[in-house]
Amino acid sequence: MKTFQELSQAFLLHFNTRPFPDQPSGLYDAAAHMLGIGGKRLRPVLSLMGNELFSEIQTDAWKIASSIELFHNFTLIHDDIMDKAPMRRGSPTVHSKYNESSALLAGDVMLLQAYDYLNETDPRIGQNLIRLLNQTGKQVCEGQQLDMDFEKCESVTLTDYLHMIELKTAVLLAVSLQMGAIVGGADIADQQNLYAFGKNLGLAYQVQDDWLDAFGDPEKFGKQSGGDIIQNKKTFLLVKALESANPQQKKEIIQLLDKNAMDKVSKMIDLFAACGVGDAAQKAQERYLEFAISHLNDVKVSPERKKPLRELSAYLIQRKF
Amino acid sequence: MKTFQELSQAFLLHFNTRPFPDQPSGLYDAAAHMLGIGGKRLRPVLSLMGNELFSEIQTDAWKIASSIELFHNFTLIHDDIMDKAPMRRGSPTVHSKYNESSALLAGDVMLLQAYDYLNETDPRIGQNLIRLLNQTGKQVCEGQQLDMDFEKCESVTLTDYLHMIELKTAVLLAVSLQMGAIVGGADIADQQNLYAFGKNLGLAYQVQDDWLDAFGDPEKFGKQSGGDIIQNKKTFLLVKALESANPQQKKEIIQLLDKNAMDKVSKMIDLFAACGVGDAAQKAQERYLEFAISHLNDVKVSPERKKPLRELSAYLIQRKF
Repeated sequence: MKTFQELSQAFLLHFNTRPFPDQPSGLYDAAAHMLGIGGKRLRPVLSLMGNELFSEIQTDAWKIASSIELFHNFTLIHDDIMDKAPMRRGSPTVHSKYNESSALLAGDVMLLQAYDYLNETDPRIGQNLIRLLNQTGKQVCEGQQLDMDFEKCESVTLTDYLHMIELKTAVLLAVSLQMGAIVGGADIADQQNLYAFGKNLGLAYQVQDDWLDAFGDPEKFGKQSGGDIIQNKKTFLLVKALESANPQQKKEIIQLLDKNAMDKVSKMIDLFAACGVGDAAQKAQERYLEFAISHLNDVKVSPERKKPLRELSAYLIQRKF
Repeated sequence: MKTFQELSQAFLLHFNTRPFPDQPSGLYDAAAHMLGIGGKRLRPVLSLMGNELFSEIQTDAWKIASSIELFHNFTLIHDDIMDKAPMRRGSPTVHSKYNESSALLAGDVMLLQAYDYLNETDPRIGQNLIRLLNQTGKQVCEGQQLDMDFEKCESVTLTDYLHMIELKTAVLLAVSLQMGAIVGGADIADQQNLYAFGKNLGLAYQVQDDWLDAFGDPEKFGKQSGGDIIQNKKTFLLVKALESANPQQKKEIIQLLDKNAMDKVSKMIDLFAACGVGDAAQKAQERYLEFAISHLNDVKVSPERKKPLRELSAYLIQRKF
C-alpha cells in the first residue's frame, strides 16, 4: 500500500502535462500552462487509492487518474474565467496569461482529452466510467451555476449551501474513488461506500476551508485569511450566521456586507464568533468526517489496506491543528 | 430512402431540446434557449442519411444524431462568446440573453450530454464513436483557435485558410456521415469515402459562403452581403486576393482594410472581381464538390440509395443559381 506522497509522485511520472500537439500554440500552450501549474493532484491519487484498496494498481487506473485530473483542470480554467480570477497557486490564470477565448478553448480541449483517456480503458468498464464522468460533470456544472446564483441571492439557506458544495466539490472526489474501485474490481456495495466516503470527505474539506478563511492561522494555512469575507462570498460561516444571528447581529452583518469598511474582516470574524458559527462549522466538519470514516469502515477489505485513505483523511481535514 | 426534409422533420420529433432537469434554471434555460433557436439540423440529418445508405435507420442513429446536434450547439455557444456575437438566426445569442458565465456552462453541459447519447449506443460501436467525437472535437477547437489567430495575422496563405475551414467546419460534417455509416454497418472503405464526401462538401459549402458574402443576391441568400468585408474577415476571397493582386491592387485592398470607408464594401467587391478571386472561389467550390461526389460514387451501394445525398449536395451548393 502506497502513501499519498508516493502515489502523487508516481502519478506525476505518468501524467502527461502536454498530451496535445504543438500547434496551434495559442490553444495548446494555454492548456499546458494550466496542467503545469500543479497542485496536490488529490483527485488522481484518490483514484489510485480506490484501485489499490482492492488490487494491484492496474494500467487503467493511470488512465482514469489522468482523465480525472484533466477534467478537474477543465473546470478550474472555466471557473477562473467566470470568477475573473487573476492568479491560481501563485501563477497567472490561463485567461490572464493568454486571453479568455484561448482559455475557454483550452478548457474544452482538456475535457475532450479527459474522455479520450477514459475511452481507452477496458471496454468492459469503459462505458460505466464514461457514464459516471457524464453524470459528475453535469453535477459540477450545476454546482458552479448555483454558486454564481448565490452571489446575487440575499437569502441562501444552509441546506442550499451544502447542496451547492456537494455538487461543486464533493462529487468529483467521490467519483474519483469510485472509478478507482471499479478498476480494482470492487463490488457495487463497496463502490457506493467509497463514493459516500469521498463525498463526505469533500464536504468536510470544504467546510474546513470556509472555517480556515476566518479562523485559520495564515502562516500554517498559507493563504491570506478573510479573503472570502472581503468578497462577501457565501460560505458555511456567513450562511449559518445569517440564519442564527439575533436581529442586532444580523443588522451588523448586513451593514458589513454593504460597504467595504477597513475593519470589515476583523468585525465579521467577531460576529461569526459571537453567533457561534465557528463552532458550528467545526462540528459539521467533524460530523462529515465521521460519516466518511464510517463508510470507509464498511468497505469489505482489511483495515491494513485502508491505512493510506485514513492517513489522507487526517492530513486533509486536520490541517489546522 | 427519405429526403432531407423528411429526415429533418423526423429528427425534430426525436430531438429533445431540453434533455436536462429544470434546475438550476440559470444553466438549463440557457441551454434550452440555444437548442430551441433551430437551424437546418444539417449534421444530424447527415448521420441519418449515412445510416440509411446501408440499412434501415437504427435506434442508435437517433442517438448519434442528437449527440452531433448537441456537440454542434456546444461549439456555437462557445464561438458566439468568443466572437462577442449578439444575434444568431434572428434570436439573441445565449450570452447576450443570459450572461457569459451561464453560456459558457451551458456549452459545457451540452458537450457532456453529447457524450451521454453516444455512450448509450451499442457497446460494440460506442467506443469507436466516442473516439471519433474526441478526435473531431479537438480538430474543431483547433480550427476555432486558428480562425482567431488569423484575425491578428497580416499574411495568411490560402493553404492555411483551407486547413482552418477544414478543421472548423468540414470535419464535423464528415464525421456525422461516418458515424451514421458505422451504425448502418458500412465497411471501413465506405466509411472513409463518406468521410471524404462530407469533408469536401463542407469545404465547398464554406467557400460558397465566402463567395456569397461578396457576390450573392441578398434577397435569395437571406443574409446581408458584405458582412465579412466590413469585419475584415479572412475569407477565401480576401486571402486569395492578397495572394494574387498586383502591387497597386494590393495597396488598395490594404487601404480598405485599414479604414472603414463608407464605400468599403463596393470597392472591395470591385477589387475582388478585378483580381479574379470570385471566379477562383467558384472553381474551388466546384472542384471540392466534384471530389465529394467522386467519393460518394465510390461507396458500394446502388445509385438509388445515394439519391438523397446527391440532392442534398445540389441543394447546399447551388443555392446561388
